[in-house]
Amino acid sequence: MVLLEFAMYPVGKGESLSPYVARSLDIIDRSGLAYQLTPMGTILEGEWDEVMAVVTKCFEAMRADCPRVEVALKVDYRAGDGSRLASKVVAVEERLGRKLATG
Amino acid sequence: MVLLEFAMYPVGKGESLSPYVARSLDIIDRSGLAYQLTPMGTILEGEWDEVMAVVTKCFEAMRADCPRVEVALKVDYRAGDGSRLASKVVAVEERLGRKLATG
Amino acid sequence: MVLLEFAMYPVGKGESLSPYVARSLDIIDRSGLAYQLTPMGTILEGEWDEVMAVVTKCFEAMRADCPRVEVALKVDYRAGDGSRLASKVVAVEERLGRKLATG
Amino acid sequence: MVLLEFAMYPVGKGESLSPYVARSLDIIDRSGLAYQLTPMGTILEGEWDEVMAVVTKCFEAMRADCPRVEVALKVDYRAGDGSRLASKVVAVEERLGRKLATG
Repeated sequence: MVLLEFAMYPVGKGESLSPYVARSLDIIDRSGLAYQLTPMGTILEGEWDEVMAVVTKCFEAMRADCPRVEVALKVDYRAGDGSRLASKVVAVEERLGRKLATG
Repeated sequence: MVLLEFAMYPVGKGESLSPYVARSLDIIDRSGLAYQLTPMGTILEGEWDEVMAVVTKCFEAMRADCPRVEVALKVDYRAGDGSRLASKVVAVEERLGRKLATG
Repeated sequence: MVLLEFAMYPVGKGESLSPYVARSLDIIDRSGLAYQLTPMGTILEGEWDEVMAVVTKCFEAMRADCPRVEVALKVDYRAGDGSRLASKVVAVEERLGRKLATG
Repeated sequence: MVLLEFAMYPVGKGESLSPYVARSLDIIDRSGLAYQLTPMGTILEGEWDEVMAVVTKCFEAMRADCPRVEVALKVDYRAGDGSRLASKVVAVEERLGRKLATG
């Protein structure tokens, strides 16, 4: 399973990016994949082809009206079927023996 | 104010990274800065020098026993004093007119 | 056209990553796309689907024998057909009016 | 020694970013540190405090007239004094037994 975090935004469309981020989140939220929106990006979980297909859909929507687009993306792949969207954070808390700020 | 997301881990210390992440989170949690741990990194909020000092402290602790260390880091700076750790996510939800998965 | 920079490596396979990087570069070099290997990653140039297909091929080759894989990836898309693999660096040098270290 | 790659640019200052990149490169070129400008960022080499001081100087120059600034940064630290700005690329070429495109 893949955890993929990405942030995608237009260059040259002004200083406020939330309209463009909202359009991507609409695509992500309807994709059916598990995800988490954070203040710095969105984390998707699924197979490689599934998560990349969602990123590609967001890109196609953005370049339709944005002549320049930047994407920053990270993948953490681990063999196996289990979800780590919740468990990675819990593993750190368990090691420290206390609750942490997790949004 | 700066939002800074980073992930820092050793190379060559095996496949499980949570012991090293926990050590960094201990430093972060005690720093007094606002932060959010996500499945893909930790987001700090503060002035440039404050957040960089915390990242440096995590790095010093890790290189003490790790001969190779990787860091991935993103900064989103916006002039002004207001916290955006919560408000960036809310702005996207308000634009879409519905709640999103936020951890 | 898309400029895509990425770095992909296994976690838990020891401290030296060049055998795995070499395997990816073999795939990239044979892909027919324009590219540049740097000390911190590889920059590909092509259409979105072309560059993503190469990244996917590298990922499939790596996960075949690596149970954990990390990928860091950045995209700079600009509408139009012109190559920017050389011209972006030249544009900075022309602004400064002097040659810079470019590898 | 640390290899640090970073890209820093303003949001809301139009689609062409090379004037801002040139200003950072002027700071970097005068810093005395070894570096390499690529089409996707600049790679610095030095001790942690040295490379971070240069990034901070670029940030201070940019925020002086840019109300929103994005930074993407990666570090590859390896214990020891040797430069890897050239040797990492050569190690990959030696493994493959052929020359690669390196800018």
